[in-house]
Amino acid sequence: MVMSSAFERLHQHLHQTRLLGSISSALYYDQNTVMPAAGAAWRGEQLALLAGQLHQRQSSADYDELVAAAESELGADAPPERRRNLALLRLELERQRCLDPQLVSALAKAQSRGNAVWQDARARNDFAAFAPALKELIALRRQQASQLAAAEPVARSPWEILAQPFEPDISKARLEELFLPLKTALPALLERAASVQAPDAAASTGAAMVPEALQEQLCTELLDSWGYDPARCQRSRSAHPFSCTLGPQDFRITTRVVPDQPLSAFLATAHEWGHSLYEQGLPRLGDHYFPWPLGEATSMGVHESQSLFWECRVARSRAFAERWHLRFCTGLGGGSASDPWGGSFGFWRALNPLRPGLIRVEADELSYCLHIVLRFELELALLEQEMPVEDLPQQWNQRMLELLGLQPQSDSEGCLQDIHWAEGLFGYFPSYALGHLISAQLAEAMARDLGSLDGLIAAAQESVLQGWLAQHVWPLGRRVNAEQLVQQVSGRALQAQPFLDHLVRQLERLETSP
Amino acid sequence: MVMSSAFERLHQHLHQTRLLGSISSALYYDQNTVMPAAGAAWRGEQLALLAGQLHQRQSSADYDELVAAAESELGADAPPERRRNLALLRLELERQRCLDPQLVSALAKAQSRGNAVWQDARARNDFAAFAPALKELIALRRQQASQLAAAEPVARSPWEILAQPFEPDISKARLEELFLPLKTALPALLERAASVQAPDAAASTGAAMVPEALQEQLCTELLDSWGYDPARCQRSRSAHPFSCTLGPQDFRITTRVVPDQPLSAFLATAHEWGHSLYEQGLPRLGDHYFPWPLGEATSMGVHESQSLFWECRVARSRAFAERWHLRFCTGLGGGSASDPWGGSFGFWRALNPLRPGLIRVEADELSYCLHIVLRFELELALLEQEMPVEDLPQQWNQRMLELLGLQPQSDSEGCLQDIHWAEGLFGYFPSYALGHLISAQLAEAMARDLGSLDGLIAAAQESVLQGWLAQHVWPLGRRVNAEQLVQQVSGRALQAQPFLDHLVRQLERLETSP
Repeated sequence: MVMSSAFERLHQHLHQTRLLGSISSALYYDQNTVMPAAGAAWRGEQLALLAGQLHQRQSSADYDELVAAAESELGADAPPERRRNLALLRLELERQRCLDPQLVSALAKAQSRGNAVWQDARARNDFAAFAPALKELIALRRQQASQLAAAEPVARSPWEILAQPFEPDISKARLEELFLPLKTALPALLERAASVQAPDAAASTGAAMVPEALQEQLCTELLDSWGYDPARCQRSRSAHPFSCTLGPQDFRITTRVVPDQPLSAFLATAHEWGHSLYEQGLPRLGDHYFPWPLGEATSMGVHESQSLFWECRVARSRAFAERWHLRFCTGLGGGSASDPWGGSFGFWRALNPLRPGLIRVEADELSYCLHIVLRFELELALLEQEMPVEDLPQQWNQRMLELLGLQPQSDSEGCLQDIHWAEGLFGYFPSYALGHLISAQLAEAMARDLGSLDGLIAAAQESVLQGWLAQHVWPLGRRVNAEQLVQQVSGRALQAQPFLDHLVRQLERLETSP
Repeated sequence: MVMSSAFERLHQHLHQTRLLGSISSALYYDQNTVMPAAGAAWRGEQLALLAGQLHQRQSSADYDELVAAAESELGADAPPERRRNLALLRLELERQRCLDPQLVSALAKAQSRGNAVWQDARARNDFAAFAPALKELIALRRQQASQLAAAEPVARSPWEILAQPFEPDISKARLEELFLPLKTALPALLERAASVQAPDAAASTGAAMVPEALQEQLCTELLDSWGYDPARCQRSRSAHPFSCTLGPQDFRITTRVVPDQPLSAFLATAHEWGHSLYEQGLPRLGDHYFPWPLGEATSMGVHESQSLFWECRVARSRAFAERWHLRFCTGLGGGSASDPWGGSFGFWRALNPLRPGLIRVEADELSYCLHIVLRFELELALLEQEMPVEDLPQQWNQRMLELLGLQPQSDSEGCLQDIHWAEGLFGYFPSYALGHLISAQLAEAMARDLGSLDGLIAAAQESVLQGWLAQHVWPLGRRVNAEQLVQQVSGRALQAQPFLDHLVRQLERLETSP
């Protein structure tokens, strides 16, 4: 029997870790698409069993030794990809090692309890009932950050440490720099949008009548036109849309039909398909990619940039609205009597309300980032600036008024609206905003290479856009982090200007309504 | 920390084994309902990983010690259930221990190769291409039986040893005794049925037009009327109908719509729901059941008796046809113009063709058992009587003519039709026939307790039938084997007569057509 190298054995180890992880994903997919409700408790036990096995594989002494052996095998002429793969594995291993298992267990329990308490508190609009759970989660996560600090290759604040899993290498200073132009410019743009007449209420009501079967059919047509391959992909229904990867050749997305929101399923399909395309395009061949870290998505922000590109840059574009308005009307029976939007401009308008609201997940691209700025600042206050948890509702409402000009009538539509904090997820929100900025900057670079995106979309040439992403973005995997990716692909550092430029163009289009 | 008893630790071990096994079931369910085709290779690796873990858990020295420790804890006053649970675990463990791992691995490979070769040979009607694979599978399975012989508590022939996993405690002599009346009586009953005029061809053609959506709706109505609880159950589509249990509160069934067979989905739904009801009714509470062996189904024959009860005793009954004929016609538009069956008798006739055919899976209850007798005898000849594999096609065709009066035109519709032998599954077929016999004998006992089943079905009182099964059959689990179950529930030994009596009643009904 030939002795295999540590590198080969590590490859096998990671391959098996991927198998286990993807079994969890398959169970998650089933749970959210077809599992009957009473199956939840047993499914929870199954997932906990797999999580235990995964944790064991990723933190055991055996694994540690295997990584160390592979590191010591690295010769002077080792390819940089191998070096980076081992560095990423080592960093993750050191992080696992810093954590006290008792804290991990306490955190898991607090997260589960936090979720349950939050569900109830939100339903009863009772922030006081949620406050103790939130305090405990903040305390545990600060403790976690302090344990993890020893593993960080550079000095990082507690919030920064917690944000690393979502956005590797991110810093508060960089986010503040990126968000400042948004904070300055967006409120004025919102005011400008408010001065334009709202879409005709009757038209909106009429549009609410797109039947479920037609919505489903149009989603299928959309995916077909964007290269959906049923041999590798599956779309199901779930309560909340998501995208997940179950294997190197097995990609799933889910959508839902929302009553009175006739375009919601269509836009969610574009969004989730964007996530899926990125996953489908990640590098899988060769010695350095699947199942190694370099074969993974590089950050949540980049992932979100891909979904937002297809949702906001393509599906909400004027050219796309022009093409699909016809299909919607044909599905509704054809003829002008079947057009609840009163023409393709009205349809585009329905795709782009450009109106602020209290709820983040319902926000459009004009106000979305302000919801994020608000949460980012409050997370810093809670985790690093000793802001008492009791002040959260008042602080939330005050910032909501300053940033978005809106006043929540209850905490349920205020600081209790999101699930993230209820599960102790701090450091996640900024990735959503980064997705908008990255998407805009990549779209600008794409237009420089390909010419007007609107022109290509009008000619139903979305495959050209996909080809560009498949060439420049998807194959990078984790060879670069999010900011390096933007620098490499667009030729300059990430910044807010391309996104703000795009919003101004949207407003100009709105103001020149026919 | 309190030391737990070996019994408690064994309970935990089995609980975790069940978790792992049910994860495999969940992956299997996903694979057969929604997984895109390209996901197959990765899914195969996931399932192999879990199978390896399961094998390890069920055959490790640690597990062996745990069972031994629990055995030595057994006091003189230990409940008989605990004794039987440990005996069943011990038997399974001894079987695992007898097997040479190299043989297990060789068999797994031969099964996988056998399946692939068979797929191709069947498509090309080329038995000679399949023969070497079949020879190898027979040789390996004989070798397996010879290794397993040491673990058997009583002397068993090779075929009997291979049949034990499907039908515990079964013997050839008992099967020959049970099948003899079938072999004698069924050919005459088939001739008698043939003398009755076949259903009107035009009516059959018309009936082929039940639209897919209507078939789906009627399946849903059927399940609703039989207590389907969406909080614990899920029905999906798959290429072949099946039932499976994913957790103690998570029951799935699948069906399919077959072109030109408008009643196929409806009957398959009844069949799979029968399997699922048994699983739902297995004992789960208390010290001796879930996750112990006593909480499991006792045999494939008993499982099949439960599906056949709902398919053949209920859904194909005259009283049920009377009720559902109306619903089918209403779904087709209502009125006599919408009745392709020309009345409820014609509908019952369509549910009960009572005609022999070459293909087992398409056979109705009048000829089904003859297909099994043929296979049972050929398995014995191949495994124990040195019949050369080359003789199989000729032997098959000769017996088909003797038993069913039919002549296959090709091996594809002859000895190549089933997947079982291609995967080395010998000893499985008789359970299908036992299912018919057990179902009939249980139905007879049920009628003795409850009065005419037809009367209850006519009054839509199927819940009373379910209640009887829930009281007398389902909660037995593996406390008794199949024959003991029949003896206990019906008050006499399993025999073919109740089944033959039922068939004669069906023929009398056929002959008194209105």
